[in-house]
Amino acid sequence: MSTSPRHYLRPLDKKQGRIDMSHGAGGRATHQLVAEVFKPAFSRTWPAGWQDAGDDGAVLPPLPEAANGGRLVMSTDAHVVAPLFFPGGDIGQLAIHGTVNDLAMMGAKPLYLTITCILEEGLPLSELIQVVHSMAEAACRAGVAVVAGDTKVVERGKGDGMYVSTSGVGWQRQGVSLSGGQARPGDAILLSGPIGEHGLAVLSQRQGLQFDSPIVSDCAPLHDLVERLLDTQAVVRVLRDPTRGGLATSLNEIAAASQVGMKLEESRIPVSPAVQGACELLGLDPLYIANEGKLLLICDPDDADKLLTVMRGHPLAAHAERIGEVTEDPHHFVQMRTRFGGWRMLDWLTGEPLPRIC
Amino acid sequence: MSTSPRHYLRPLDKKQGRIDMSHGAGGRATHQLVAEVFKPAFSRTWPAGWQDAGDDGAVLPPLPEAANGGRLVMSTDAHVVAPLFFPGGDIGQLAIHGTVNDLAMMGAKPLYLTITCILEEGLPLSELIQVVHSMAEAACRAGVAVVAGDTKVVERGKGDGMYVSTSGVGWQRQGVSLSGGQARPGDAILLSGPIGEHGLAVLSQRQGLQFDSPIVSDCAPLHDLVERLLDTQAVVRVLRDPTRGGLATSLNEIAAASQVGMKLEESRIPVSPAVQGACELLGLDPLYIANEGKLLLICDPDDADKLLTVMRGHPLAAHAERIGEVTEDPHHFVQMRTRFGGWRMLDWLTGEPLPRIC
Repeated sequence: MSTSPRHYLRPLDKKQGRIDMSHGAGGRATHQLVAEVFKPAFSRTWPAGWQDAGDDGAVLPPLPEAANGGRLVMSTDAHVVAPLFFPGGDIGQLAIHGTVNDLAMMGAKPLYLTITCILEEGLPLSELIQVVHSMAEAACRAGVAVVAGDTKVVERGKGDGMYVSTSGVGWQRQGVSLSGGQARPGDAILLSGPIGEHGLAVLSQRQGLQFDSPIVSDCAPLHDLVERLLDTQAVVRVLRDPTRGGLATSLNEIAAASQVGMKLEESRIPVSPAVQGACELLGLDPLYIANEGKLLLICDPDDADKLLTVMRGHPLAAHAERIGEVTEDPHHFVQMRTRFGGWRMLDWLTGEPLPRIC
Repeated sequence: MSTSPRHYLRPLDKKQGRIDMSHGAGGRATHQLVAEVFKPAFSRTWPAGWQDAGDDGAVLPPLPEAANGGRLVMSTDAHVVAPLFFPGGDIGQLAIHGTVNDLAMMGAKPLYLTITCILEEGLPLSELIQVVHSMAEAACRAGVAVVAGDTKVVERGKGDGMYVSTSGVGWQRQGVSLSGGQARPGDAILLSGPIGEHGLAVLSQRQGLQFDSPIVSDCAPLHDLVERLLDTQAVVRVLRDPTRGGLATSLNEIAAASQVGMKLEESRIPVSPAVQGACELLGLDPLYIANEGKLLLICDPDDADKLLTVMRGHPLAAHAERIGEVTEDPHHFVQMRTRFGGWRMLDWLTGEPLPRIC
């Protein structure tokens, strides 16, 4: 009995401690975990003067963005990547970037996030702490505040370390309209950089594979790149980050939604030699492998060069390419002219070549 | 290859089918699941004229509530209840009410929700469909639109059927200010009805326990009750739904946040005979058992009778009681005068008497 909910508990053993079922029960241990792990990390992301009152929800500051018109945008993502840590990132960073990027793909400025963590009994506290710090760091970099969260614990063998869901709101400025259904025949298709890195980085960590040149996840927040692209006032019709299912599936989604076809040039699609080599070795196709820091942009062809220049001037899109064009096609086929001059049909992803990569 | 992402797939077997890893891979099978299970259910919740464009996020309609001032509120909850179905509800209904109620406890009108589902390989499709319908039904009843979602699949033995996270935004009208830190000595403490039903209903289902009178979860959306309470213009300082940790833990949280003490009357705390009997049998204390359709209200004592009358006129709070008062206490103790006239200290919940109840 005490003025502090943590009075009766030993301090958390942040080095050797592990999550147990009491951390999810909503009593003293849950409060201790929130007070000693989550709150100190996420308080770094809060706007000046804003405080978490420990209530059931977060009252947001007024949105200055709303003064100039525009719309609120919401998005959410669950993350179940295995293993939790991989070259170039971890589940925490991925979970922040996942929702930041989904908001950015709507042309929205990401503002506020909420997070839920489902922890498996036995998870080392040190791993949780590392992930939470990674989330806070990624949120700070992306300029979003983590304002609410929830933690649950499941028994050993009913989870896999931790699962993280993020949800966010952002503000889409007046005049912006982006949707997978807006591609038109003649439009140019731009890609911000080389594909396949995230999925292969996770796979290599999971399987203990070693390549000559290590493959590192491209996991990155795309909101700043998007803001610069929208600042050009160019006619951008579609933005999409080709995550699960890879580039080929994202393009098929857009082709189906817009009722158009697409023709790509294989020689223009950037793939690093390391990814190309690993894919050949493993029998995988980089066109179907998830990315976490790349974007596809479909625009009026007259604006393509201007947008490509902006992309190439940004650190996250230095190797951007114009990879093809939208066509009129009643079958909504996505086709690719190969390096040998033939045409290859790019179907939707079927099956599950790379499970649990995001 | 086809104009439809589902062309190559057999129709979902909604009776005998099961979730497999391909449903989480982001390709044809994921699209089929979204198109045949999630979208038809959630489209019932959408505002007139609003359409899901299949993009990475949802652009919300303008908020008419914002015209009169006020603030945006966000909240989130993860749900890991086992089993998925229990007397009086299921994980779907619980997940909707969880976030609806958290927003309501902030005095906000719940407006838009997002949902993530983490599915275990092998989950019967029929169970998923039942849960999704339950979510849609609960959302319709609460007047909230489910505007975005994400589904992931984990291998058999890495989950437990399904986990559901919900996140929502609501609008807190101008002038409303509710927080666990606002209780003042002399304030009245009201409780909307009998406690302990949700946790015991889940436990009884999990353990196959049978009681003379069956115990049914009180799972319910509290936003309408809250709106009526706020409409009175009474001075409401704190609203809280006593979920995990039960009534005793919620009151301790408020006492700590407000730096006050509390004195309760055991004889005024409603507990049904069925719950009382089951608790005696199982060695549990109803004061620490989760509720999912009850609220605690702390208010200026002059307004207590008025608010109690409003509560008792509402179907979800017919058995509301004034259970005690806020006191000045440097130790922030929550104490209860027992039926025998003695005083009992109500500590925070410690340990994990009832895991996985929400």
